[in-house]
Amino acid sequence: MAFEITNEFLENLTELISTNNESAITTLFKEVHFADVAEVLDEVNFEEAIYIIKLLDSEKTSEILTELEVDIREKILENLSAKEIAEEIEEMDTDDAADIIGELSDERQKRVINALEDDELAADIKELLSYDENTAGALMAKELVKVYETWTVAGCMRRIRGQAKDVTRVHSIYVVDKEDKLVGRLSLKDLIIAKSDQQIADILKSKVDSVNVNEDDEEVAKIMAKYDLEAIPVVDDNKVLLGRITIDDIVDVLKDEAERDYQLAAGLTQDVDSDDSILQLTRARLPWLFLGLVGGIGAFIIMEGFQGVFTKYASLFFFTPLIAAMAGNVGVQSSAIIVQGLANDDVKGSINSRLLKEMLLAALNGIILALFLFFFVWAYEGKIDTALAISTSLVAVIIVAGLIGTFVPLFLNKRGIDPAIATGPFITTSNDIFGILIYFLIAKMILGI
Amino acid sequence: MAFEITNEFLENLTELISTNNESAITTLFKEVHFADVAEVLDEVNFEEAIYIIKLLDSEKTSEILTELEVDIREKILENLSAKEIAEEIEEMDTDDAADIIGELSDERQKRVINALEDDELAADIKELLSYDENTAGALMAKELVKVYETWTVAGCMRRIRGQAKDVTRVHSIYVVDKEDKLVGRLSLKDLIIAKSDQQIADILKSKVDSVNVNEDDEEVAKIMAKYDLEAIPVVDDNKVLLGRITIDDIVDVLKDEAERDYQLAAGLTQDVDSDDSILQLTRARLPWLFLGLVGGIGAFIIMEGFQGVFTKYASLFFFTPLIAAMAGNVGVQSSAIIVQGLANDDVKGSINSRLLKEMLLAALNGIILALFLFFFVWAYEGKIDTALAISTSLVAVIIVAGLIGTFVPLFLNKRGIDPAIATGPFITTSNDIFGILIYFLIAKMILGI
Repeated sequence: MAFEITNEFLENLTELISTNNESAITTLFKEVHFADVAEVLDEVNFEEAIYIIKLLDSEKTSEILTELEVDIREKILENLSAKEIAEEIEEMDTDDAADIIGELSDERQKRVINALEDDELAADIKELLSYDENTAGALMAKELVKVYETWTVAGCMRRIRGQAKDVTRVHSIYVVDKEDKLVGRLSLKDLIIAKSDQQIADILKSKVDSVNVNEDDEEVAKIMAKYDLEAIPVVDDNKVLLGRITIDDIVDVLKDEAERDYQLAAGLTQDVDSDDSILQLTRARLPWLFLGLVGGIGAFIIMEGFQGVFTKYASLFFFTPLIAAMAGNVGVQSSAIIVQGLANDDVKGSINSRLLKEMLLAALNGIILALFLFFFVWAYEGKIDTALAISTSLVAVIIVAGLIGTFVPLFLNKRGIDPAIATGPFITTSNDIFGILIYFLIAKMILGI
Repeated sequence: MAFEITNEFLENLTELISTNNESAITTLFKEVHFADVAEVLDEVNFEEAIYIIKLLDSEKTSEILTELEVDIREKILENLSAKEIAEEIEEMDTDDAADIIGELSDERQKRVINALEDDELAADIKELLSYDENTAGALMAKELVKVYETWTVAGCMRRIRGQAKDVTRVHSIYVVDKEDKLVGRLSLKDLIIAKSDQQIADILKSKVDSVNVNEDDEEVAKIMAKYDLEAIPVVDDNKVLLGRITIDDIVDVLKDEAERDYQLAAGLTQDVDSDDSILQLTRARLPWLFLGLVGGIGAFIIMEGFQGVFTKYASLFFFTPLIAAMAGNVGVQSSAIIVQGLANDDVKGSINSRLLKEMLLAALNGIILALFLFFFVWAYEGKIDTALAISTSLVAVIIVAGLIGTFVPLFLNKRGIDPAIATGPFITTSNDIFGILIYFLIAKMILGI
């Protein structure tokens, strides 16, 4: 079933555009899913993309627009009039419409909303734009099937036929009282199975999960994933039904969240991908590299302070990359486990008990690794005192690195800061410095210098 | 709406269990969602968990079992007879049932399947167990609503009322021909809107996405996320309809995939979480630390080889942690971007053009960082030749690190190996060694030693 963008397809398309063969292009895209058309538009040059968007039917292009990469969509929208954008918007679900209008300048937002022919849609979009980013309100759509508890099954079916036309997928039918407060839900299946003269109040399921319109979107994702929900109604503080969030939007939230955590752990600040320009990539990468550079200079200053040791114990210095690497690796491992545990609500109990566990774990790992290192240094260098000094301090370095890796994300989380920023370069750099300092201090002590 | 496990709740529960107050416990859990009960069972001790499972109704406990952590479920199942497990299984959806039976030993699998009263269910589970792990077949459920193209809308509605009882959520109604080959789909909405004497063949949507039963599950997740599908039918090589996959299962696949990639990047081999035992955590962490240790020994051997330089240019050695850190950070950044791009199918074009782009990017970053380092070393050490040697080799190290970070995941991917293993300790360690070697070679050359 998968549509593959081949070079032949692209060459053929370019050829058709250059000869202005409109009917052939329309036919070419006829059977292609809008998500695939969006990928084609990401590939072709900008003039060709505009040409295709203006040529295809707005029912299809509205879907394509929602799937495009943000930067390409931005460029395309700049080349459409407010009227043309409004026509696309009218074909979209309200949540997608609000997202796209939200990307425009304030000035253009107003013009596009004014150009909308459907007043109710304009009001819905204005409402959706009013919610803060990353809340349930910003994520929800206004489209839903709503029935009153006093209706009968037959009356309900009749009216649903009307409402359902606007709703791509009917997950649940939400039942409200006369003040529009959510009182229950029904599935289409329940309705089909029920007798036509039954009253909705008698067949509704009164246990219905809902989220507040100001709830954080990652929290909504967590709830929907945990309870295996495919849609969840959104209500205000008075339980009045405002909209609904569907699972496909949650899939996007989860993917974005995972990508962001992964990028933070890898030392990338902005949401970049491999196709971004060198300048964008530099902006995402350089700050963390600079942090690493400053850390490296710190390590240099510490080592210089110990340079008197060099004449007698030169090999101490040759092990600093090993010490730094172990400190960094242990720190990243322990912080990643904590960050992931926090994301999954798995981290229970006190910080102290966590630190104790990590200390035992790091000590166990450290001793195993140190034993190996001890025998290597002893065999290679023939000096048992150097071997003992290096391996003992390795254990200390690993324990401290594990504790820092555990403590920092827990501390940030307590303070309400995203613990994911504590992984990656931040932990590596601080552990490098602490590790090298501890290493030389302990080694000096053991060697009695 | 969120249920919170409080200490009071747990104390109360323990109290009720110790006094054997069955009715109070049943009442306590009455309004609690099974996903929350599963969390409670993760918290209480093992005897209490078994007590609760045996007490509650199998309709509820079957759902709870599917939500439990694998290790706790395993222990609970050990304490249930084959007959008791079979009773739980009969309440589950076929996909969950097959997953749980799959966790048992071959011997117990047979006994549980034989204890099932429903022969059709036993056959379905046997079929699902026969598919390879991580394929569409292993992910799908047998429950679906299937109609024949020759039926009328009215006849269809009548039979759906029967089939739908077994299907928790009716996403789509799948239409098959007389050989059970998938020919189209319908939504319940289409059916409600249609006239009752119309034939299914006239109202079905013939464009229906499907996946082959042997398709990789991550590929299925990608397709469903891309096309915003909430369910997808699964077919065999002859297009015969076998089952369907729903989006909630895909949410789990996506979460697992993201967690695994994140853990690999952090140097954790197994699927661990922060609550695992010290021994399990050691098994997940030690192999990567050992790799780091071996890398550190490699760096040691290289540095020892250059020790003659020390008398005149001691500070070269004090910058090795900086060099290693920069090589590691750049490598992780570039590999993370490629790994994520590959996961999103964003990486197009040849390997060579990728490498060229990364080279330019790394050179740009490297030159900016090297300029800073140059002025620092010059100001701090007062030696312009050392400053020049160190900063020039930093640029070379960063470029090589970026190229390795880009090349390795692309190469692994070409070979059909998961590129995610190339992030984290693997890249850091190899870049440490290459970085330090390149650094000394270039510095020696520039300083003319």
